[in-house]
Amino acid sequence: MGALDEGHFHEELSNGVKQCCSLELGFEQEPETLTIQDAVRHLLTGLSEDFNREGLKKTPFRVAKALRHGTRGYRLKVKDIVEGALFHEAGLDDGNGHAGGADEPVIVRDLDLFSYCESCLLPFQVKCHVGYVPSGERVLGLSKLSRVADIFAKRLQDPKRLGDEVCSALYHGIKPAGVAVVLQCLHLHVPNLESAFLDPNHQCWVKTLVRSGSGIFENENADAWDDFAVHLRFKGIDVHRIHIKDSTERFWCPSRSSSIPKISCMLESADQELVATVASIIRSLGEDPSRKELVGTPSRYVKWLMNFQNTNLEMELNSYPCGKPNGEVSHNKEQMHSELNISFWSLCEHHLLPFHGVVHIGYLSAAEGGINSVGKSLLQSIVHFYGFKLQLQERLTKQITHTVTSLLGGDVMVVVEASHYCMISRGIEKLGSSTVTCKKLGRFKSDPAVKDMFLQSIPNTKFEG
Amino acid sequence: MGALDEGHFHEELSNGVKQCCSLELGFEQEPETLTIQDAVRHLLTGLSEDFNREGLKKTPFRVAKALRHGTRGYRLKVKDIVEGALFHEAGLDDGNGHAGGADEPVIVRDLDLFSYCESCLLPFQVKCHVGYVPSGERVLGLSKLSRVADIFAKRLQDPKRLGDEVCSALYHGIKPAGVAVVLQCLHLHVPNLESAFLDPNHQCWVKTLVRSGSGIFENENADAWDDFAVHLRFKGIDVHRIHIKDSTERFWCPSRSSSIPKISCMLESADQELVATVASIIRSLGEDPSRKELVGTPSRYVKWLMNFQNTNLEMELNSYPCGKPNGEVSHNKEQMHSELNISFWSLCEHHLLPFHGVVHIGYLSAAEGGINSVGKSLLQSIVHFYGFKLQLQERLTKQITHTVTSLLGGDVMVVVEASHYCMISRGIEKLGSSTVTCKKLGRFKSDPAVKDMFLQSIPNTKFEG
Repeated sequence: MGALDEGHFHEELSNGVKQCCSLELGFEQEPETLTIQDAVRHLLTGLSEDFNREGLKKTPFRVAKALRHGTRGYRLKVKDIVEGALFHEAGLDDGNGHAGGADEPVIVRDLDLFSYCESCLLPFQVKCHVGYVPSGERVLGLSKLSRVADIFAKRLQDPKRLGDEVCSALYHGIKPAGVAVVLQCLHLHVPNLESAFLDPNHQCWVKTLVRSGSGIFENENADAWDDFAVHLRFKGIDVHRIHIKDSTERFWCPSRSSSIPKISCMLESADQELVATVASIIRSLGEDPSRKELVGTPSRYVKWLMNFQNTNLEMELNSYPCGKPNGEVSHNKEQMHSELNISFWSLCEHHLLPFHGVVHIGYLSAAEGGINSVGKSLLQSIVHFYGFKLQLQERLTKQITHTVTSLLGGDVMVVVEASHYCMISRGIEKLGSSTVTCKKLGRFKSDPAVKDMFLQSIPNTKFEG
Repeated sequence: MGALDEGHFHEELSNGVKQCCSLELGFEQEPETLTIQDAVRHLLTGLSEDFNREGLKKTPFRVAKALRHGTRGYRLKVKDIVEGALFHEAGLDDGNGHAGGADEPVIVRDLDLFSYCESCLLPFQVKCHVGYVPSGERVLGLSKLSRVADIFAKRLQDPKRLGDEVCSALYHGIKPAGVAVVLQCLHLHVPNLESAFLDPNHQCWVKTLVRSGSGIFENENADAWDDFAVHLRFKGIDVHRIHIKDSTERFWCPSRSSSIPKISCMLESADQELVATVASIIRSLGEDPSRKELVGTPSRYVKWLMNFQNTNLEMELNSYPCGKPNGEVSHNKEQMHSELNISFWSLCEHHLLPFHGVVHIGYLSAAEGGINSVGKSLLQSIVHFYGFKLQLQERLTKQITHTVTSLLGGDVMVVVEASHYCMISRGIEKLGSSTVTCKKLGRFKSDPAVKDMFLQSIPNTKFEG
């Protein structure tokens, strides 16, 4: 969720720079921006949405802006960053002395970045550790290691290529004795619509660890890796367990668990038009959609996106058998029950980026154990039903509450905790932030003791976004 | 450390915006930038440094840029961010239904920001939790909560005022039923030169927790705080223990533990000129140096800065009594010893921002227990001696190694782990990153087993930056 980030533009421009006020207009009118906006309108139509409805009107612009910002690395040069930031550092005023001689590694750990997956076009998170051994006492400003890594992160990437490109760029840019890069990458794994309903224990993340070395780090068994390894081991990483080259490794992106031809077969002809549309987006970002690794990407993206198609099945849910006991019961005999940590996945309608998290549902019922197992899976279905749409967290919360109350009666409370990709990627980059929304009805609203009892039952653990 | 961040400018501009290439030049020539650069040259001279020396040449520009970037909030308007990002969200297509009615809180947790302390001009870290209860179903894009908070963080601030300003701005900007803000603030506490030598257990951080509420959150005991409190309690925060107004609270900034008049007395007349210089910087940032809370700030900043004055005491250290046993000993009988986690504080000569962390020293000695207690405090003194200067981590590491080897012999290894404020603040904002440098001499260099034995002795815990 979140809204447009024009604010970010203003913000950066106000960094001492007020005279250029036509910038945003310029960006809006660039052909690449216009192409992406047209493509997004096309995709929205493919999702059976009206791109003129409130909430979607600005979405094409927001998506174009986020995508171009997130792939600005294609338009940046390492040379511009490194030039002038390399300096000679001999160590001591009185010459090399005992402390001179061969240079030793400089390592910057735990740089948080995000990149875009070339297989599915979703952002993925990167924790980057980068080190180099200076040559001839030429030292680079520390922040430049982060900035150079970000040039390559802000492209359509795969973890291994990202590591290799950062490594190679630094090696050629600063001409050190060697460069070592270790990346911990985290890819959200949104299940497809069917498997979400079938597999309640779906794994939310795919993780991978890659390393890349050049110069004295080129050989993966080189002694130079030992020091680097030891310094990263401080942070719980065992570098020696990461292979530099592993041709047998499977694709890490969860969208590639299905083979490409199979996907193509599954897509209808209308979807094939959408596939061409996504290819036009990739072209507008400055990439070649016929690059080997990108050939299947538009199909995979469309298939994924279609999980969030607008549907009109609302009424069918109400006909499921419900576990709520029939008959009148005294309010006094009713007990508070809760279903906690129901996973959900959704798509922010402002940015077409995923948000995901957990739903907690509290309700009053006279039955000892609350609803039965049919009722529990029904709650999970309701959450998925409203999750797999273009959504806002606020609306999702209300819709779940509304539907649950028709099944479990008027005393219901719903809490949704979510992590939003639009808060991680884009200009805002607020990694680790999470959003809570809730909705109270009936006695959860009128009786603080009932509400508190439910809230206390929610696990007091950090929500993992 | 790190070097200039011109790259950041280019980066943002390349965000689809290539036509404006005179931006940086414009910023460089603005009178505020020029004033700050002049002031920084003046301060460098006050530190007995030559501002034309390699390493300091670009420092005035870097400092001006970082300060103006870090206080850009003075030039930003909440209206520009909120406008167009407020939207109507009724919840369900079929009207309010069961889920309509009164609005419920929307809370965004764990937004990482940084701000500048108005008492000492150092950046401090902020974890911001912000929530509001919409009115009339007017909802704000989530990212806007972060952007509005950042407008006020990017000023000279005090935690309480920051919370109040964010709260008030959101209240007037989005006209909700209420706004609640909770801030966890973390201020680096660099000891002054004397106390660093005297107190080895110096506390590195000052923490404070503040909250601010408006509308239904205005009363600190209001029921509305309960829900907010419960949702933050998930993250280990007890909101009810934070008082909204506490006039008896002491100043949080460690520089204010001394009273202002006392500081003024301690400053010599040359320093008084520097004080006027710092006041000119504050004016250039768009602030009024005669504002009550800022009156003592230039004095405090100068006093703090003078801890890092260039001195020529190098030789004196070598005359301290040394704990190393006299006489020849067989190499085979020598054992590896280490002094771990020696705290240090230093000032990055590129940005005049602190960096701090721990030094680990390994050496070979025939003595059973290594050096004696005089020797230990000598190592701490050496670390402080080289820390309290304008520095680079690479140089600090070499200087410590060089000096230690003259005391403990030629088999020495030094590892420095540090957190740099220039990587947290400025455009880069890589919170949580840390930098490792090391230097090996003698058998630590020639014998991997000796080196490994030392590295294994370093605690395998996350370095807390």
